[in-house]
Amino acid sequence: MFDKHYLSPSEALERILKALPENDPPLERTRIEECYGRITACDIVSAEDLPAFSRSTVDGYALSSADTFGAKETSPAYITLVRAEVLMGTSPEFSIRKGEAAKIPTGGMLPQGTDAVVMLEHAQVVSDDMIEVLRSVAPRENVIQRGEDVGKGTTVLSKGSTLRAQDIGALAGLGITEIDIFRKPLVSIISTGDEIVPARETLKLGQVRDINSFTLAGLISDSGGIPLRKGIIKDEYALIKKAVRESLGDSGIVLVSGGTSAGAKDMAADIVNDIGSPGVLFHGLSLKPGKPMIGGVVNGKPVLGLPGHPAATVVCFDLFIRPLLERLGGAGARKKFPKALRAAMAKSIASAAGREDHIRVAVEEQDGELLAVPILGKSGLITTLVRADGIVVIPPEKLGLDAGEEVTVVLF
Amino acid sequence: MFDKHYLSPSEALERILKALPENDPPLERTRIEECYGRITACDIVSAEDLPAFSRSTVDGYALSSADTFGAKETSPAYITLVRAEVLMGTSPEFSIRKGEAAKIPTGGMLPQGTDAVVMLEHAQVVSDDMIEVLRSVAPRENVIQRGEDVGKGTTVLSKGSTLRAQDIGALAGLGITEIDIFRKPLVSIISTGDEIVPARETLKLGQVRDINSFTLAGLISDSGGIPLRKGIIKDEYALIKKAVRESLGDSGIVLVSGGTSAGAKDMAADIVNDIGSPGVLFHGLSLKPGKPMIGGVVNGKPVLGLPGHPAATVVCFDLFIRPLLERLGGAGARKKFPKALRAAMAKSIASAAGREDHIRVAVEEQDGELLAVPILGKSGLITTLVRADGIVVIPPEKLGLDAGEEVTVVLF
Repeated sequence: MFDKHYLSPSEALERILKALPENDPPLERTRIEECYGRITACDIVSAEDLPAFSRSTVDGYALSSADTFGAKETSPAYITLVRAEVLMGTSPEFSIRKGEAAKIPTGGMLPQGTDAVVMLEHAQVVSDDMIEVLRSVAPRENVIQRGEDVGKGTTVLSKGSTLRAQDIGALAGLGITEIDIFRKPLVSIISTGDEIVPARETLKLGQVRDINSFTLAGLISDSGGIPLRKGIIKDEYALIKKAVRESLGDSGIVLVSGGTSAGAKDMAADIVNDIGSPGVLFHGLSLKPGKPMIGGVVNGKPVLGLPGHPAATVVCFDLFIRPLLERLGGAGARKKFPKALRAAMAKSIASAAGREDHIRVAVEEQDGELLAVPILGKSGLITTLVRADGIVVIPPEKLGLDAGEEVTVVLF
Repeated sequence: MFDKHYLSPSEALERILKALPENDPPLERTRIEECYGRITACDIVSAEDLPAFSRSTVDGYALSSADTFGAKETSPAYITLVRAEVLMGTSPEFSIRKGEAAKIPTGGMLPQGTDAVVMLEHAQVVSDDMIEVLRSVAPRENVIQRGEDVGKGTTVLSKGSTLRAQDIGALAGLGITEIDIFRKPLVSIISTGDEIVPARETLKLGQVRDINSFTLAGLISDSGGIPLRKGIIKDEYALIKKAVRESLGDSGIVLVSGGTSAGAKDMAADIVNDIGSPGVLFHGLSLKPGKPMIGGVVNGKPVLGLPGHPAATVVCFDLFIRPLLERLGGAGARKKFPKALRAAMAKSIASAAGREDHIRVAVEEQDGELLAVPILGKSGLITTLVRADGIVVIPPEKLGLDAGEEVTVVLF
């Protein structure tokens, strides 16, 4: 068995989540135009009926449905057409009596005395003041009732809902133009490593540019956080400690990326323990790529040490940082559906027992079937991620995947 | 057959796409920090090798692999350990001869004379200047070769690629800190209807608030466009014509939403034909909801008349506006995978032959199986969309879906 003494990623995440305080994130009152993708900080309850009046869903004639019972093409119902018409956007100032009907447009308000609408094409105009109705209508047919969409006092959206376009539309429809949403969590990214230089620098031999802080920043924004790139810190205990401590002051999650010089891995763990409690909760995982990851909590905030390899960065993001952003961002009311598809493995791939393997794959179509083609390459190569469309997970109990086996690809 | 004389949505989209000019969108030079989710306006070619030197992928000893051939635990290879060590971020100022090795950290640069690295755990220190190597290593083992990630002159990203977090990381790694991206298409949203009032207004009887411009704005932003909400225009020919004409001046797509008073539907089509050519390309679709949609092209720009029902708005967005945003935004190099899942229909649902039906569904889990539960309700109800997780399409040749039938749910 591989890595028997290491935690699985889900056990490790559980440890972090348990060590976090339960309280809600802070909230901010915000205009709905700015709330797309944001998370509701309380239940949103309608103060009124939507629609506020019964409306026609078709162009036709508003009448009392009882007047049409039994009507058919061979024996139509004869109804008196009143001179007044329903006009859009206004309340009809007339009422309809038994045996009468009024012309009404789609969306128009039903006049007093009516409970249904006959579609234009199901009636014939006989004269200026008479129509033949060729089909019966049931009560409420072709009508949206007052409050049918949302009744006054109904909870439209629960606390913790991520707001989609149509949810904002619903709020607008109810006249709710400002709401309380949770603030986005701030995530500090501290890049470490004596060999790392900023992206815009010309390299000396032995140096490489900072890749991971750019990758992490994008992933954090996509998952509802605000990334704070804190720059590149040399592999020195005091410098990294200072950067972590300062970041704990201004952000809700602190990421220490890289730190690859000999001894740097243990240094990060020592620093986390040094700054506060409970400190390090795990060091090393039964995971590939991502095995050397460190997870801890200090002063109620997660501090994560991420391996420097680009592929490990992305895997650790999915397994730890995204769920932490959801927790710290207050999301939770909505069902979550990963962006995934089913495909057949294009070739066999081995995996050590007891280890969760995350395989980068490209998805290709061949003869109408989707194939997951493993992108083989060291996890230190950023281009394996550029060429990949997603990831296939081999669970710890499996010794690999067979060619042709159906798998779930979680898409980037 | 239903709607035999109407186009299918895909035929209708094809008509619009064929009437558009072929030229690329304008581009803008932008710092990579601002390029997440944006689209590359040209192929991006690396001007250098990544990495610029051969690097170790482990902590260990750099040496010539030939010195380890045949080494095993029972007969280790004895190698002289030189005093100098490889330091992170610098070029080693020494070279290694046959029979020698130097300590090297993960990410360190291989010294001259070495072609592989033995992991620390596969060697034992015998004395200050001698190690036993317990396993042979192959040439290049535990090494990322110079240019192995990206060779100089390689195309890293093709023109038309939507940039993901890891793609920006790769650009940073190559020292490419500014690139040309396509400008986002601007989309004007003109809301029409005599009954429509702004979201913040108190309603008089007969009035409803503007819902669709808020829904459309969110969907447009999510799909890489910039929404311009042009306000609510009364159902008068001259006013709507003026709004469309002005919007053609400042945006790449013009949407006219609603227009529900009697005669307004034909008015929108007349206005499109009145403003320019080719004008209206279709009026009405074999689609539910969304049947009354109008599609046209004027002065090389799409002008779409969208039905006022909230559900029809969302369906028409998916079928027309999203693909148009991709075309006008220059996307195209990346494979597209819809966010979708497979589920079993929770109940049977009927559909007219010859019509493409888009059914809103909630996805629920029951005994480990995913169920697609149709949200029944008039397409004029915004809350059917709030309660739905996605859409199931019934193709025109099907007369419905059976309970238990497996379907694809395209998620919102």
